[in-house]
Amino acid sequence: MLSVLGSRPGLFESVRPMASSREGERTVPFAGSQLPVVELSSESLRGLDLVLFATSAAVAREFAPVAVSEGAVVVDNSRAFRMDDSVPLVVPEVNPHAVRTHSGIIANPNCSTIQMVLVLKPIHDEAGLLRVVACTYQSVSGTGLAAVDELREQTRAVMSDEPVVSEVYPAQIAFNCLPHIDDFDDAGNTREETKMVLETRKIMDMPELPVAVTCVRVPVFRSHAIALNVQTDRPLTPERARDALGSFPGVEVVDAVEEGAYPTQVDAAGLDATLVGRVRADTSVANGLWLWVVADNLRKGAALNAVQIAELLADELS
Amino acid sequence: MLSVLGSRPGLFESVRPMASSREGERTVPFAGSQLPVVELSSESLRGLDLVLFATSAAVAREFAPVAVSEGAVVVDNSRAFRMDDSVPLVVPEVNPHAVRTHSGIIANPNCSTIQMVLVLKPIHDEAGLLRVVACTYQSVSGTGLAAVDELREQTRAVMSDEPVVSEVYPAQIAFNCLPHIDDFDDAGNTREETKMVLETRKIMDMPELPVAVTCVRVPVFRSHAIALNVQTDRPLTPERARDALGSFPGVEVVDAVEEGAYPTQVDAAGLDATLVGRVRADTSVANGLWLWVVADNLRKGAALNAVQIAELLADELS
Repeated sequence: MLSVLGSRPGLFESVRPMASSREGERTVPFAGSQLPVVELSSESLRGLDLVLFATSAAVAREFAPVAVSEGAVVVDNSRAFRMDDSVPLVVPEVNPHAVRTHSGIIANPNCSTIQMVLVLKPIHDEAGLLRVVACTYQSVSGTGLAAVDELREQTRAVMSDEPVVSEVYPAQIAFNCLPHIDDFDDAGNTREETKMVLETRKIMDMPELPVAVTCVRVPVFRSHAIALNVQTDRPLTPERARDALGSFPGVEVVDAVEEGAYPTQVDAAGLDATLVGRVRADTSVANGLWLWVVADNLRKGAALNAVQIAELLADELS
Repeated sequence: MLSVLGSRPGLFESVRPMASSREGERTVPFAGSQLPVVELSSESLRGLDLVLFATSAAVAREFAPVAVSEGAVVVDNSRAFRMDDSVPLVVPEVNPHAVRTHSGIIANPNCSTIQMVLVLKPIHDEAGLLRVVACTYQSVSGTGLAAVDELREQTRAVMSDEPVVSEVYPAQIAFNCLPHIDDFDDAGNTREETKMVLETRKIMDMPELPVAVTCVRVPVFRSHAIALNVQTDRPLTPERARDALGSFPGVEVVDAVEEGAYPTQVDAAGLDATLVGRVRADTSVANGLWLWVVADNLRKGAALNAVQIAELLADELS
């Protein structure tokens, strides 16, 4: 987030990094210098126009209202407020108008949701969405740094024929796929799957949109991929879909399979754009379409989208 | 295949391993001893009741008819004959009767197809299939030994910060997913995807069944997984689906998510059963159901299924 902010010097007068006290005294690199990290508290939240939260839902629930009462607008990355009716859930390219309805807090969607709605929106505008079926291929960086270390350590263990130890994930992630992201509910869905359904409906302002999702963690360090199957109301050829996608902000079409061109997670890492390829007809249903959607879960899936929301707010203020 | 055969001593009087001449003189371990490998030729194909081919489609096209003309029945693992109307395509648990219709050659289906139809069949019997949408998570062993080596070598390179070299795959497979298995056709589908559609229809004897597939290679050594979304004609609760699946031969239900029980590729490696878990309602459509299907692509996906076909033939002969 600091790296994305650092590339937008016009956006702020000053930046104040905060963390919990257990991280001790330290500095973080920012735009070529070092900034001291201050302890997150009602005092340190005073005098700020905008606070970007990248914390657990519990910390956001405790401190976001404090920041608001101190006069700041909050952009929160956690799931704490996403489904709150009074909190807009915003992907700037998809529903920028929603930002105006905030009462102090704006929520940043789940990483997989962001890249999915970026592709669904131009398709909906072009042909009307009827149903969405999505299977994800999500990288371990979505879980956090400890998960990145676990994939690396387990990979080393497998390659050296040593026993594999799982601490972050419930089972081996190295050279394995886990159909299990976040907790299970009574219906057998994971919370990640439910997030993708409910957040998509809210961002698209389509409260009844039929969305079915299976979320799978794959042994990849960075970027999420989604195999996306959609049915539209009106016919939509792959050619027209590519045109609509290619002219939508934040989306880049990488789709020339005859030349081996399709996006992969390694290609997307570090990029701002959501990449889409393998756009093709699904003839198993009327007006069916397949797409393969890849984005950096740490940039567009988190930091970049939050900073773009901050930019929208700055535009509103100016 | 020799390992699976070795565990079924009642099936054969003797076994004759064959290979191309470029492999030179060698022996292979079989049932505790060493068997000499003979060169594949019309001479070496003489005097056999049954020949199991695990070769390229080109070699199968050349030598399978020779074996048949020498009096043998052929079980072929390649794609050479699968869609030939005169060749039955058999998964013994699903369409054993089809074996009787052969004219010398019986085809063994694609690995992903086998594990998918094993799950689709009991669901169809119970509630009638209307549409199938599948996304695969396929291991590199499906490509062959060179691909297994490539995943290992690329993994080592990434872990050591060395450049990655891709020879077997068109792009990096280590810590990456490739939505590209086999060649692309003009409609943008891969041959693997088309195989899964056409072979499923043939095995299920449902020539019009709507099937939509995206095939993805993942950095896993062994076993394929499939996120499977089905719509049925009649209502089918997850409970009844689990009962139907659990009583179907060759399928094992591993589905107690509240205890963290779901199948993964590492669990399935070396097993004969096709494992299914995460059976849950898909409420985005009438009578929708999600399943997560995992099987060892080298055993049930290839060798085991071929040997089971041989057993069916032996039953027919006896």
